[in-house]
Amino acid sequence: MARLVMKFGGTSVATIERIRNVAAHVRREVEAGYEVAVVVSAMSGKTNELVGWVQECHKLYDPREYDAVVASGEQVTSGLLALTLQQMGLAARSWQGWQIPILTSDAHGSARIESIDPARLNAGFARGEVAVIAGFQGMHEATGRLTTLGRGGSDTSAVAVAAAIGAERCDIYTDVDGVYTTDPRIVPKARKLEKVSFEEMLEMASLGSKVLQVRSVEIAMVHKVRTFVRSSFDDPADPRPGTLICEEEEIVEQQVVTGIAFSKDEAQITLRRVADKPGVAAAIFGPLADSNINVDMIIQVVSGQAGSGAPATTDMTFTVQAADYERAMDLLRKLKSEIAYEAVEGATDVVKISAIGVGMRSHAGVAALAFRALAEKGVNIRAITTSEIKFSVLIDKDHTELAVRTLHSLYGLDKAA
Amino acid sequence: MARLVMKFGGTSVATIERIRNVAAHVRREVEAGYEVAVVVSAMSGKTNELVGWVQECHKLYDPREYDAVVASGEQVTSGLLALTLQQMGLAARSWQGWQIPILTSDAHGSARIESIDPARLNAGFARGEVAVIAGFQGMHEATGRLTTLGRGGSDTSAVAVAAAIGAERCDIYTDVDGVYTTDPRIVPKARKLEKVSFEEMLEMASLGSKVLQVRSVEIAMVHKVRTFVRSSFDDPADPRPGTLICEEEEIVEQQVVTGIAFSKDEAQITLRRVADKPGVAAAIFGPLADSNINVDMIIQVVSGQAGSGAPATTDMTFTVQAADYERAMDLLRKLKSEIAYEAVEGATDVVKISAIGVGMRSHAGVAALAFRALAEKGVNIRAITTSEIKFSVLIDKDHTELAVRTLHSLYGLDKAA
Repeated sequence: MARLVMKFGGTSVATIERIRNVAAHVRREVEAGYEVAVVVSAMSGKTNELVGWVQECHKLYDPREYDAVVASGEQVTSGLLALTLQQMGLAARSWQGWQIPILTSDAHGSARIESIDPARLNAGFARGEVAVIAGFQGMHEATGRLTTLGRGGSDTSAVAVAAAIGAERCDIYTDVDGVYTTDPRIVPKARKLEKVSFEEMLEMASLGSKVLQVRSVEIAMVHKVRTFVRSSFDDPADPRPGTLICEEEEIVEQQVVTGIAFSKDEAQITLRRVADKPGVAAAIFGPLADSNINVDMIIQVVSGQAGSGAPATTDMTFTVQAADYERAMDLLRKLKSEIAYEAVEGATDVVKISAIGVGMRSHAGVAALAFRALAEKGVNIRAITTSEIKFSVLIDKDHTELAVRTLHSLYGLDKAA
Repeated sequence: MARLVMKFGGTSVATIERIRNVAAHVRREVEAGYEVAVVVSAMSGKTNELVGWVQECHKLYDPREYDAVVASGEQVTSGLLALTLQQMGLAARSWQGWQIPILTSDAHGSARIESIDPARLNAGFARGEVAVIAGFQGMHEATGRLTTLGRGGSDTSAVAVAAAIGAERCDIYTDVDGVYTTDPRIVPKARKLEKVSFEEMLEMASLGSKVLQVRSVEIAMVHKVRTFVRSSFDDPADPRPGTLICEEEEIVEQQVVTGIAFSKDEAQITLRRVADKPGVAAAIFGPLADSNINVDMIIQVVSGQAGSGAPATTDMTFTVQAADYERAMDLLRKLKSEIAYEAVEGATDVVKISAIGVGMRSHAGVAALAFRALAEKGVNIRAITTSEIKFSVLIDKDHTELAVRTLHSLYGLDKAA
């Protein structure tokens, strides 16, 4: 029999009534002939309540105890959904991460799934049971302790389970009805995508589109899990298909650009007149990496005049996460003499806009079109990075809407009026 | 190093502030040099919330899923107390039942502890950690599923852990400050007992005194675990010792009667003019047992006149739990022709009063004193049962307070004015 994984997030299981709605979605798929594994999050608000208690007990909390407390939210929902399915006359049972087991690293609070043994789940399918799996949680084998996968971790649980049991597809039910060409709250002309490739979705998730946890897309891509993003608020008797995340080859009418993402969690740092000598990049970015500060875009402009006799210097501009900005500035100020720069400047009122599309691989000049269009609108570009299937520009935050709309139209993404 | 188990119930961990108070009690014992295991219940109200959800999902719920949902309450508290202890500078970690493991039968909802492996807890003590154990829960080994031990089950967890790790004693912290000669709300002259024997405590727990789960006393008795019942609301810096439950030999000044218990959850059933022939008791009590209805007191009075020529008949009176009363009456009405009785009568406005004391073994006539004293007060006795260390009388519910006070004074239990 074909297998299916269905995942429901916190808002979809927030009340017993909504859990009944989820059960109706599950019943539809069981009646369609699937062996179904359902992955559930904690009831909306519960995780925040638990995290609040943890922080009240200990500000600098032990992440192992955090995981023990917070994983209980998914435990509750898994049992309640199993009961609701039974009430509808379906055989069902709950599975905690450690019961399957779902084994993870010991990076408590943001653990990575290392393996899922499908044997016990398979035995359950053979007994005709729906498997209701507590998402977000697993166990570290050596210590036997509960782990959690970080915010959005239930997406990752779902895709990993789908890979482990060889599911035909993985349906991620959420409070939006699919993946859009950009955020519809900013661009009313945004279109829902019918299909998007793994690579594109990975970039979108990394670049601030919060539909799926990045790690879940990575696993889907590696294991080729056909994953749908769809709405849990659709009528269970007549649901829409949502957006399919799949291999590039499945997408027949390939656009050059598939979507425009943006991230406001960026900050820009510029070091003026850095001595332009070998090893200077290492002197700057080594200490930042040692402090767990991720650097994203980097541009370097030679500022010393060639042939003037003065030693050559360069301006280094790069971006970090806004949350790391103060720490990065502190660190760089302390390293002023070692790095040998003249001044450090920073800005947090910036946004990174990205255009993503596998079609860029075969089309030259895609980014150049954007630079011209933005210039015509008077949008100043502070930094640029490009990769095989995306390019990003760093601009003033005030220009976010203007820039997103401009690029959305430029690449033909607006829906027909 | 000497070991100690401390158990805290739901009202003692109802808020983060109260959890801090619990942690202060734990710190006192750690500083006194003990290796400490703490057993905790769910935060007050949480178990009822979870049970409510379970019942909302499925009235005739699967007890395995009930256990998965309800066990989460203790999981939360164990993590929060571990964090609070860490915040105070003590090494501590939480343990779920399945992590130790605490193995139980598969009687979900009222499972019995079968074994506790102390190896992992011992390793924790060797690392200097306080073990914070989620009470009330365990795991069934063959199925790997979560189990719970029934209401009050954390008491049983605590005593069983104390036996497993060879603790010097087990302190049950509760919202009362010890075991009393009877319920102080009914008899203001009730005294707190300094010591009570396991056998007496077992009878008291069975007879409606709700201080401890019966099973916990059984385990304490079998494994000779010295168990204190004491108050969690005492000042952690200056707590009172509470009541010690211990072996009879430890109690020097033995009273004939140690306490008066009463249970209002009783119902009386009388079958009139039952044919007095062999096998009639089996015909009555066999079907009741098959329907899981426990019969407690039984009295039989020959009602047919000897030598009158009419066949001999007898009146059978017995008691059942009030919750089983309607089912028992239904069953007996259906069996009227098979049992061959003339009429069935019942009453639920009855109460069972019991006097308990190991001293009864060596003192004759203890019960007879009670029958005379109650008769003098005009209290009609409907039924009597006696055992080695207790006797019980069934009387009208209206006479509860009068009868309890009369017996409490009769056996010299009133505290000095």
